[in-house]
Amino acid sequence: MADSELPHRPKPEAQDASAPAAEGETKNASKNALKKAAKDKAKAEKAAARAAQEKAQAAAQEANDTAKDLYGPLPETEDVVPSTRFSEFTEDHYEKEVTVVARVDNARVQSAKLAFLMLRQQGQKVQAVIAAAEPISRQMIKYTGGLNVNSIVQVTGIVKKPEIPISSASISHLEIHIRKVYMISEAAQMLPMQVDAEGAPIVTLKTRLDNRVLDLQTETSQAITWISSGVSELFAEYMIKSGSRWIFTPKLVGAATEGGSGVFEVKYFKRNAYLAQSPQLYKQMCIAGDMENVFEIAPVFRAEDSNTHRHLTEFSGLDFEKTFRNHYHEVLEFAENLLVFILTQLKERYATQIATIQKSYPKAGDFKLPKDGKALRLNYMDGVALLKEAGVDVSEQESFENDFTTAMEKQLGQIIRDKYDTDFYVLDKFPMAVRPFYTKADPNDKRFSNSYDFFMRGEEIMSGAQRIHDIKELEESMRAKGLEPNQEGFEDYLNAFRQGCPPHAGGGLGLNRIVMFFLGLPNVRLASLFPRDPQRLRP
Amino acid sequence: MADSELPHRPKPEAQDASAPAAEGETKNASKNALKKAAKDKAKAEKAAARAAQEKAQAAAQEANDTAKDLYGPLPETEDVVPSTRFSEFTEDHYEKEVTVVARVDNARVQSAKLAFLMLRQQGQKVQAVIAAAEPISRQMIKYTGGLNVNSIVQVTGIVKKPEIPISSASISHLEIHIRKVYMISEAAQMLPMQVDAEGAPIVTLKTRLDNRVLDLQTETSQAITWISSGVSELFAEYMIKSGSRWIFTPKLVGAATEGGSGVFEVKYFKRNAYLAQSPQLYKQMCIAGDMENVFEIAPVFRAEDSNTHRHLTEFSGLDFEKTFRNHYHEVLEFAENLLVFILTQLKERYATQIATIQKSYPKAGDFKLPKDGKALRLNYMDGVALLKEAGVDVSEQESFENDFTTAMEKQLGQIIRDKYDTDFYVLDKFPMAVRPFYTKADPNDKRFSNSYDFFMRGEEIMSGAQRIHDIKELEESMRAKGLEPNQEGFEDYLNAFRQGCPPHAGGGLGLNRIVMFFLGLPNVRLASLFPRDPQRLRP
Repeated sequence: MADSELPHRPKPEAQDASAPAAEGETKNASKNALKKAAKDKAKAEKAAARAAQEKAQAAAQEANDTAKDLYGPLPETEDVVPSTRFSEFTEDHYEKEVTVVARVDNARVQSAKLAFLMLRQQGQKVQAVIAAAEPISRQMIKYTGGLNVNSIVQVTGIVKKPEIPISSASISHLEIHIRKVYMISEAAQMLPMQVDAEGAPIVTLKTRLDNRVLDLQTETSQAITWISSGVSELFAEYMIKSGSRWIFTPKLVGAATEGGSGVFEVKYFKRNAYLAQSPQLYKQMCIAGDMENVFEIAPVFRAEDSNTHRHLTEFSGLDFEKTFRNHYHEVLEFAENLLVFILTQLKERYATQIATIQKSYPKAGDFKLPKDGKALRLNYMDGVALLKEAGVDVSEQESFENDFTTAMEKQLGQIIRDKYDTDFYVLDKFPMAVRPFYTKADPNDKRFSNSYDFFMRGEEIMSGAQRIHDIKELEESMRAKGLEPNQEGFEDYLNAFRQGCPPHAGGGLGLNRIVMFFLGLPNVRLASLFPRDPQRLRP
Repeated sequence: MADSELPHRPKPEAQDASAPAAEGETKNASKNALKKAAKDKAKAEKAAARAAQEKAQAAAQEANDTAKDLYGPLPETEDVVPSTRFSEFTEDHYEKEVTVVARVDNARVQSAKLAFLMLRQQGQKVQAVIAAAEPISRQMIKYTGGLNVNSIVQVTGIVKKPEIPISSASISHLEIHIRKVYMISEAAQMLPMQVDAEGAPIVTLKTRLDNRVLDLQTETSQAITWISSGVSELFAEYMIKSGSRWIFTPKLVGAATEGGSGVFEVKYFKRNAYLAQSPQLYKQMCIAGDMENVFEIAPVFRAEDSNTHRHLTEFSGLDFEKTFRNHYHEVLEFAENLLVFILTQLKERYATQIATIQKSYPKAGDFKLPKDGKALRLNYMDGVALLKEAGVDVSEQESFENDFTTAMEKQLGQIIRDKYDTDFYVLDKFPMAVRPFYTKADPNDKRFSNSYDFFMRGEEIMSGAQRIHDIKELEESMRAKGLEPNQEGFEDYLNAFRQGCPPHAGGGLGLNRIVMFFLGLPNVRLASLFPRDPQRLRP
């Protein structure tokens, strides 16, 4: 069906649709300009005549149309028609009239007397059918079957039980027999990609991310964004319950204290500022400011030219910092319980979403949590030993020259899964040589430190440690790492310790990585609404 | 008492203390260099002899010290001594032994047999006293009375009821009779400002902010940071309860779409990026992405050279965006209830903190909420009329040339307080001329728009509106505001509407302003942990 036949369609798109044909004719006519002009004129007249005829026909049809108030633009009315959400549908709805607001996932005319709509609401699909029978007119069927894909419509109809379940719909045990269909927001006729392209090999990740708004409309994306929302909700919930204070530390900082190469430079009036690579120094200053137990949920910026499946230049950080009385393991246990809480509750509260995502990304399988509800904690050297046992060359790790490589971490994840039946675990007591200057050395063996990493499916999601709170120890540690305590940018941080600071420890989690590894997604970009990497600044 | 007499003091600070005297002597000696050298030598010998003598005395004293295990550096022990928080103290503690961890707010030796400590915990103060009586030694009294202000100590003692309440302590009905006092973190002898300087006119806001970590330790700052934490907690709580999804939109964006002058430029690898001035375009794209109801808590960046009491270059934004069925007032009511919820619950959950802050900032008085629990909503033109009635020249406001000035807003706040007895109210239906391009015009009168501002004590804390969701209307509105839809940076945003978008409305709140106006603080910097303005990038 051509657009021009639909009286309810706005004009510009009808013209667009006829454009390619006109172009083709123009090419052949190029030999004779005069002939062409005459032909064009005749054609224009013919088109005008046809348009006038169509308009007259349309008017006549509309006058005769028994359904003319039942479809078309949404009538302006003060009456609110209560609408039913797809997720609310039960068998109680059979034979009842409902109104739904949804996108057109697909529209098709079967015959002059029958058309089908697949409706979509936050990724969930329900079939609707329209058949000619008083007062439903053929015009209304044509209109319905010709709706542009992705348009948002308000449909009223009777819920029926289909004879056989509709396998292409996610809610397959009911369909809506349309009585009214109104346009709320019309989509353009051509979309840059199909919305349900998830899993279709012809649509690349790049295309999906370039068209992220459409990509977000899929059932899988809807579910992933719910999991992401859930992780931050659960993080905040745990923190607030523990008496932690929600803080907002500055992202614009005066000096590149955490290493110059990975930091973004900002023009700040007449000087330079930098984007904070983490809230590390500031959350410690909050502890020195007697805040005792603090957390932050905020963007983290990394100017690293890493083009991998798990690096972003901007990600969401979940940070916390906490005083302790006698041993940093008080805080480590607090953090372990935090992760167990988040991961357990995700499974409880978001079971539907997890099941949806597993249909598209089944490979990684269920995320395994420790059976006893307690995190598995090993020491770094235990990890080294497990890898050595498996025949891996860990000489550089044993001698503290290097941290584990990503490949080693993944292998260790597999070994631990096989041995301990868990995808979440903690390594404690990393060598001091591989940790930042503010990390507290192990008082019993200075080669090690009171620091820990958290892993999900063999990939790091959190790094944390006891921090040095004694000013002299801190200055010594800086010098040992080749940093000068007097260098620009450290003054305020170091003063915080000169004025007295209680013992404390903390950690920083990557929200997007938690979502990615929990769900077994192949790329961290799928766990970010509008991902940023060295190549991508849009949409 | 000189530091050198205290065996537990580290050396460098004792040297610092003697420095001014040495300088004074050097000046007088400048006439005769030889004489001076000889004198210096003699002085050095004398000092060395004195130091040796003191050391010997100290050793002898320590050997005799009946209390030597009861004070000094915290003994390393695996036993956790449970500590009591100041906030937990009740009359049940009288005559019982407690252990507390707190800062030294003040230390003073009354006599060789008596010394006092004022202890401070998150700003709250409790007095402790130490008197010579077996096994407490004179050395221990000297040590206790000589503790550096702001050091963190662990004190064990018996809780007693003082004969008369201790007016200088915030908890005045009890004091601790010290049995043990151990150093956890020693502060430097000289602090850049007094911690309890709040309200003292000699300490400027600049000094306080320059020394923000110390400033945060005051009772008032502690309370303000709790209120700030509370506002975000309550915002998230309300949103989550309403089924809203927590989103994280990018702060690094590819184009300066919201106006070039107020945007920070970032070096992004080999090109430029910009810091988002608001999540406006992205939260709308989430709505186009079928997310229906979203919220964000994130930093907002404004490169405006505004040096006022209420402008920051980085602040915490609380944003939401929501679809509606029939009328944008569905969302406006949702937002009004949000603010009533936040402000009512702040009063309930943070009554203690509010009372504390009012001691320092009593001027503004209690924040008045509408008695019936429903927000007061007036139209913009009602506001104009109220001002006109009060004799204000509102000709520019009546003719839609300009929005209210800040002075007018404040005056209107006063008028409304007098008339309606509330400090929180809403103005709806602003003129289209003073709102951004994405604002929906009022369909009944195109001079106005479906937009609203929220006010607290006559100052704006939120701006919001129904947004245009029809692509043609949006493009027209852009052109009417002098923007070209084809210009760089708008493509992804406009495509979101070309692909169909439901009607929606939303708003953006400034967390710091809510805290400031709720509490009646004189400056927004007091409602930011580490404020940023055109002049300030540190601490």
